[in-house]
Amino acid sequence: MLEQIGMAAKAASYQLAGLSSRAKNRVLEKMADRLEACASAILKANEADLAQARQDGLSEAMLDRLALSPARLKAIADDVRQVCRLTDPVGQVIDGGLLDSGLRLERRRVPLGVVGVIYEARPNVTVDVASLCLKTGNAVILRGGKETYRTNAAIVNVIQQALQACGLPAGAVQAIESPDRALVNEMLKMDRFIDMLIPRGGAGLHKLCREQSTIPVITGGIGVCHIFVDESMDIGPALNIIVNAKTQRPGTCNTVETLLVHEKKAAAFLPALGQQMAESGVTLHADSTAQKWLSTGPAKVVALQPQTLDDEFLSLDLNVVVVADMDAAITHIREHGTRHSDAILTRDMRSAQRFVNEVDSSAVYVNASTRFTDGGQFGLGAEVAVSTQKLHARGPMGLESLTTYKWVGIGDDTIRA
Amino acid sequence: MLEQIGMAAKAASYQLAGLSSRAKNRVLEKMADRLEACASAILKANEADLAQARQDGLSEAMLDRLALSPARLKAIADDVRQVCRLTDPVGQVIDGGLLDSGLRLERRRVPLGVVGVIYEARPNVTVDVASLCLKTGNAVILRGGKETYRTNAAIVNVIQQALQACGLPAGAVQAIESPDRALVNEMLKMDRFIDMLIPRGGAGLHKLCREQSTIPVITGGIGVCHIFVDESMDIGPALNIIVNAKTQRPGTCNTVETLLVHEKKAAAFLPALGQQMAESGVTLHADSTAQKWLSTGPAKVVALQPQTLDDEFLSLDLNVVVVADMDAAITHIREHGTRHSDAILTRDMRSAQRFVNEVDSSAVYVNASTRFTDGGQFGLGAEVAVSTQKLHARGPMGLESLTTYKWVGIGDDTIRA
Repeated sequence: MLEQIGMAAKAASYQLAGLSSRAKNRVLEKMADRLEACASAILKANEADLAQARQDGLSEAMLDRLALSPARLKAIADDVRQVCRLTDPVGQVIDGGLLDSGLRLERRRVPLGVVGVIYEARPNVTVDVASLCLKTGNAVILRGGKETYRTNAAIVNVIQQALQACGLPAGAVQAIESPDRALVNEMLKMDRFIDMLIPRGGAGLHKLCREQSTIPVITGGIGVCHIFVDESMDIGPALNIIVNAKTQRPGTCNTVETLLVHEKKAAAFLPALGQQMAESGVTLHADSTAQKWLSTGPAKVVALQPQTLDDEFLSLDLNVVVVADMDAAITHIREHGTRHSDAILTRDMRSAQRFVNEVDSSAVYVNASTRFTDGGQFGLGAEVAVSTQKLHARGPMGLESLTTYKWVGIGDDTIRA
Repeated sequence: MLEQIGMAAKAASYQLAGLSSRAKNRVLEKMADRLEACASAILKANEADLAQARQDGLSEAMLDRLALSPARLKAIADDVRQVCRLTDPVGQVIDGGLLDSGLRLERRRVPLGVVGVIYEARPNVTVDVASLCLKTGNAVILRGGKETYRTNAAIVNVIQQALQACGLPAGAVQAIESPDRALVNEMLKMDRFIDMLIPRGGAGLHKLCREQSTIPVITGGIGVCHIFVDESMDIGPALNIIVNAKTQRPGTCNTVETLLVHEKKAAAFLPALGQQMAESGVTLHADSTAQKWLSTGPAKVVALQPQTLDDEFLSLDLNVVVVADMDAAITHIREHGTRHSDAILTRDMRSAQRFVNEVDSSAVYVNASTRFTDGGQFGLGAEVAVSTQKLHARGPMGLESLTTYKWVGIGDDTIRA
C-alpha cells in the first residue's frame, strides 16, 4: 500500500513542480473554500475520533488539541488563505553568472519533491502542512496520530477534491490512514519516494526517525530553553521577560525551562524572582544555592532533580540554577540544552556578544523572550516545523525550507577544457 | 576511543567557531608549509602503505590513487594555499531586519560544528577536507580507507603540529587511524558529537550510511549521467560534446554513461556516432534499435544489458538507447539516473526549457558537457563532495555547504505580545 502511495506522490510531484504561483494559489483557495463547505463531514469524523479518544481515556488537554469546531475549522481555512498571500520561493534565481568556460550557470530554487510528515493529534497540522507543501510545489505524505485518523481522512478527502477540481492528481496530498503503527517503520524506509521527512512529536519519535529512517530527516521541536540572568541586569525587566517566556504559553517548545542566575546577582535577584513566580503560579525547582534565597519567600520551591535539567516541563515549572559566571552558564547550556532557543539578560555589551557567539543554538536572544522562536513571529508567514539540527534549515522552517535548488547550465556547445 | 575523539572535536569546534578569517588563514598557511617541510615523513609512511597494498594485490589504478610523490605533495600544499584565498562565509549576515515586535533579528552564517568524512584510498582528500573545514571554522573527524591509514596518520600528525603551532587544539583535525572496519559503524552513531557526515565512496558505503547513521548524512558522488540528443541537434557539435563528456576523464562521477537518442534523429546521428566512438576508443552498449544503425560501422558494439543502465561504467563504455521522444527521455532519466548531471543537446528553445524544468537532477545542462559539475568549474574554489540529495546542499559543495546559520535576536527587554 505504501509503495502505491509513494509512486502516486512522486508522479504528482513532477506535475506540481511545473505549476505557476497563480495555479498553486488557485488550488489553495479552492481548498479553503471546500474545508468550509464540507465542514459537517469533517466535524462528524472528528466527533467519532473524540468519542473513541474519550473511551480510550485521553486527557482533557489531549482531547482539546484533537477537537475541531466550526470556528476552528474556519480559522484553519483562513490560515490556508493566508498562505496564498505569501511569496512563492520556487523559481527564484539564488545566484548565477557567466563562467570563464562560456557556460552560463545559475542556481534556481525548486521544490524538494515529496515531503513526508509524521505528527500527533492535531488535525490543524494536516491542513497547515498540506497548504505549505502545495504552495511550494511539493507532494506530501501525511501520517497523523492514530487518535485523529478519521478526522485526517475526512480532511484529506476534502483536499483531494479541491486538487481534482483544479485538474491536479489526488496523489499530491495523501494520508496514511490506517492506525497501524508498523506503517511508520515502513514509511521511514521509503527513500525512493520521499525526499525529506519531518517528524513532529516527542523525543521518542525523533529517536525512532534518526535511528531507522533512510530518508533525510529534520528533527526539532524539542526545546529545553535557558535564560541566563547576568550580573549587570536590571531586576524589573528581567522578571518581565521571564514571566513572558515561562507563562505566555507554557506548553510550547520555545518556553523557558531553566533559569541560570549569575552568582553575584543571586542575593538581589532571587528573592524578587520568588515573589514574582508566586504571583505567576510557577513552581521553582531550585538548586541548593538558589534554595537559600528562595526558601523564605512566598514561592513554591522544590529541590532540583538532575533529570529535570534535560527535559521539557511544558508546564508552570522552572529550574533555577546559580552559576559562577558566564563560562559556567555557557557550559550548562551546551550540556543540557537542545539547541533550540536561549537568551541572555544583560546590560553589558561584551557579555551579550560573547553569549551570542558562543551559545550554539538555533536562536539566541539578548534581552528578549525565548517565545519569539516561531515562523509567524519571525516574519516567515508560517512554519512547517522548528528545526534544532544544523543541516538544511535551522529554527523556524518557512516556505524556503521546503525547497532545494538545481544548478542550470546553459552552454553554446560548450565543453570542459 | 571514538568517544574521546568526539569530545575533543566538539571542544575544538567551539574554539574554531570564534576565530577570525585571518587567524584561520594563518593556520592554513602553516599547514601548507609544514606539509612541504615534513614531506619525507609523509612519503615514508606512504611507501609503507604502498608496499602493503602491492602485497595485498591492489590494482595499478588503485596504487596510483594511493601514491604520493614530492610533486603531488607540493600540489596538495598549493591547494591549501588556494583555500586561503577563498572568501570565508562564516559571520556573513544572510538576511535580517526589525520586526514589528521591536526585536532586531538576523540570520548569521556559522560553522556546522563537527564534520565527519568517510572516504577511500586518496590521501589528498585528507588535506582537502581538513583545509575546507578549518577555513569554515569546523572541526573534522576523518576516516580514510584502510589502504592509506599510515599516510593519513602522518598527514594528520603534520596538520596537528600546524594547529598547535598556532595555539589551536589538535582535536580540530583528527583521524580514526585504526583500520578496524567496526569503527565505521561506531562512527555512524556519534550524533552527540558529529553534526554532518559525508561519505565519499561507492554505493555500498552510501547505503551503509543511509541505513545505519544517526547523524545527518550527505550522500552523492555517484553519477549515472545522461545526454539526450534531440531531433533538432546538429551532429558535429553533438559528437564534440559527447566525446568531452565521455572521454575527458572517464573515471569521474560527472562522466556521461548513457546516451538517449531521439528516434527521428537515429538514422542520421548513429552512424556518425559509431564512427566517432571508434576513433575515441569507446565501446557502445546499444539497444536493439541502435544496433541496427551501429552494427555495420567501425565502432565496437555490444548488446545492452539492462543492468548497465543503472550503474556507473567509469570506463570508456557508453550505453546507447533510442527513445520515442522527449517524454521517453525524461522518463528514462527519472528511472535510471542518480540525480547527478544530465544534459540535452538541442536547437529547440522549448525542448531546452522543458528538459531543464522536468529533469530533477542536481545539475541540468543545455548544449554543454556533463563534465562541468565540479566545485572548481562552478567557481566555488573547491569542493568537499558532490551531493545528489536535496537537503542542505545539492551538487558541488563549496565552503558555504560547511556552514549553517543561527538566528540572532537583539531586543530591548522585548516580550511577545
